[in-house]
Amino acid sequence: MNKAKAILLVADGLGDRPIKSLGDKTPLEAANKPNLDKLAKEGECGLMDPIAPGVRAGSDTSHLAILGYDPYKYYTGRGPFEAAGIGMDVKKGDVAFRCNFSTVDENMVVLDRRAGRITSGTDQLAAAVNGLDLDGIKAIFKESVAHRGALILRGPNLSAEITDTDPHHEGEKVLTCEPLDPNNESAVRTAKAVNEFVRRSYEILKDHPVNKERIAQGLKPANIILPRGAGLGPSIEPFESEYGLKAACVAETGLINGVARYVGMDITEVPGATGGPDSNVLNMGKAVIERLATHDFVLCNVKGADVGGHDDSPQVKLEMIAKLDEMVGYIMSHLPENTYVVLTADHSTPCAVKDHSGDPVPIVFWGEGVRVDKCEHYDERSVTAGGLGRIRGIDVMKILTQLMGVQEKFGA
Amino acid sequence: MNKAKAILLVADGLGDRPIKSLGDKTPLEAANKPNLDKLAKEGECGLMDPIAPGVRAGSDTSHLAILGYDPYKYYTGRGPFEAAGIGMDVKKGDVAFRCNFSTVDENMVVLDRRAGRITSGTDQLAAAVNGLDLDGIKAIFKESVAHRGALILRGPNLSAEITDTDPHHEGEKVLTCEPLDPNNESAVRTAKAVNEFVRRSYEILKDHPVNKERIAQGLKPANIILPRGAGLGPSIEPFESEYGLKAACVAETGLINGVARYVGMDITEVPGATGGPDSNVLNMGKAVIERLATHDFVLCNVKGADVGGHDDSPQVKLEMIAKLDEMVGYIMSHLPENTYVVLTADHSTPCAVKDHSGDPVPIVFWGEGVRVDKCEHYDERSVTAGGLGRIRGIDVMKILTQLMGVQEKFGA
Repeated sequence: MNKAKAILLVADGLGDRPIKSLGDKTPLEAANKPNLDKLAKEGECGLMDPIAPGVRAGSDTSHLAILGYDPYKYYTGRGPFEAAGIGMDVKKGDVAFRCNFSTVDENMVVLDRRAGRITSGTDQLAAAVNGLDLDGIKAIFKESVAHRGALILRGPNLSAEITDTDPHHEGEKVLTCEPLDPNNESAVRTAKAVNEFVRRSYEILKDHPVNKERIAQGLKPANIILPRGAGLGPSIEPFESEYGLKAACVAETGLINGVARYVGMDITEVPGATGGPDSNVLNMGKAVIERLATHDFVLCNVKGADVGGHDDSPQVKLEMIAKLDEMVGYIMSHLPENTYVVLTADHSTPCAVKDHSGDPVPIVFWGEGVRVDKCEHYDERSVTAGGLGRIRGIDVMKILTQLMGVQEKFGA
Repeated sequence: MNKAKAILLVADGLGDRPIKSLGDKTPLEAANKPNLDKLAKEGECGLMDPIAPGVRAGSDTSHLAILGYDPYKYYTGRGPFEAAGIGMDVKKGDVAFRCNFSTVDENMVVLDRRAGRITSGTDQLAAAVNGLDLDGIKAIFKESVAHRGALILRGPNLSAEITDTDPHHEGEKVLTCEPLDPNNESAVRTAKAVNEFVRRSYEILKDHPVNKERIAQGLKPANIILPRGAGLGPSIEPFESEYGLKAACVAETGLINGVARYVGMDITEVPGATGGPDSNVLNMGKAVIERLATHDFVLCNVKGADVGGHDDSPQVKLEMIAKLDEMVGYIMSHLPENTYVVLTADHSTPCAVKDHSGDPVPIVFWGEGVRVDKCEHYDERSVTAGGLGRIRGIDVMKILTQLMGVQEKFGA
């Protein structure tokens, strides 16, 4: 038999709570989803807590856990993950930040934290500040969507134990970045570099042609960059050396691609994959099957259900479940021999909450050797009768790699 | 009422996966086992992960966990457990090794790692090197089966942070034992003692009468001893002082007896207990009941099912389940008053895998006060409907000692 392969399908925010308008069913319980149910019927089902029972997981922390990386150890804040999410290469020892392009007056009072929600030209502004040398510390800057960007500081002995420069309120002055502990020399040095970066970003951007043009058009200039959310680039064992599995990711959002890039997975461009309810999910299924030809493991995150939850739209969730079902049908009918399939969610995003909740999510393991149980439906309450019981995100790769036969034994 | 007693029955490698030739049942599901089922019917059932969900446990790490000792803390490698398994008394601070008698030429090139799979005379060779003084460090050596043996180094400030001397390939020279960190003085000192032991083993063994005789017969001489798998003897709280229970072990293999000896249990010789499918399991049941007259707690490990799994023989597993059932019938009909019975496995050894897998195993707690559930059968899938849910090995002694009424309260 060929070496086993695996697909880990994560429907973002899929889990929900009973909804009155759906007859006190969850969207998964109310939906027609023959392919998801077939997976449940032929697999071993259960509930999964992405982090631990009741803990409200982010998509980043949940994906880390599901991929086998304890988020309490490896999640070092938003900065490094935002930076990785837009394709920056965050290394161990780097300090990374989320940033806004903002508008300040000459007294450094913030007039607009989002620079009039600028939509174009930030690539040129970013290029103008990228690569600055801050007394031996290199500043690597890249724009993201709209007014957003990310900053990496690279140099010896940096620290993320520092405060934000963004005052978080308009009409207030830009804050001076401070070390949390004035006796921490690394933090003192890093904070000094941040302040220098902010000062130079203003010097460089205030008269930049992009901003001159914006002022001429009556738009607010993006004349300063304000870093926040400092986090240290963690020392993380790449997925391939951790598990001996060459891995690719098929995802729509920078956040998930960032996590995938962090652990060394190959990223995939999928035509029509938008991250919204209009996304071409079937194309993602095709990409998953294509990736399996050259990779042992494919992580696929489909975003749409989460959007339905955030928008309190059971209808959007139902539509996304139909798309997900179609994708799963495609995948199952094009599956290479000896491939395992895991279907789960990274967290619940109940319509009633409009945000991530701490409710557990359904999970099913499908493939050779699983102890098929009596579950007939893939939804939050049907799977509670499954053979898996209630597991955690951090257990998923252990269960999967032992099924695949690629896990070392602990002891004799 | 008398003080409560308990029997912990561990069927080695009992758990399995659905097997085609058994109609997609596991051996436990396919077997006729009225006494095991009676235990399930009258007890509280569930699934147990010996270490954690999906983790492939060894028998040693699993037994440590089930006895309440966290293997991530107490399992310090193969060396100490091999040594304990052949009856050596490994103490805290000792460094213990697995060893091979090997054959080398005069240039220290390994000609045969197993000295022609020597079967006799190793007791005399062992006696010749046992007790060597290595610059203040005592070398305690004992032969095991065939070409195997174990070495204990005893002295102040030893370290297991050292490399192997066995090159693991024939035609290569014996390796020099090195400290992993050259600045670690304990490791430097320990490595020096290992190299001295290897050198002296060659000096002593090359002209030993046993080897002269082997050479005369055209056999390869066992002219050197090569230690590997260094591990520190852990500081472990004896079972009796940990739980207030005088404990005995009824087991067939050195590995399990080694774990039991490690935690201070009394070992039991059972006539006809071979560790194979031909073992007299009923005699083990009789030994368990006998031990209960003088002990509060008896651990019993029955090996056969594991052998069936390793050999991909569902038939052997079925035969061993029948023997196990007979043993359980004997035990239950000879049980002293107020005795608890726990029946589980240390890991699954699915026939399809031919090795330990990370699949959970069934467990049942039987005795006064347990919350009897509706499970009617003792097998992997029936117990998922049980009252225990999915627990871990490390939970077993907590659940048992609270039932027995011998556990201290945590808090007020």
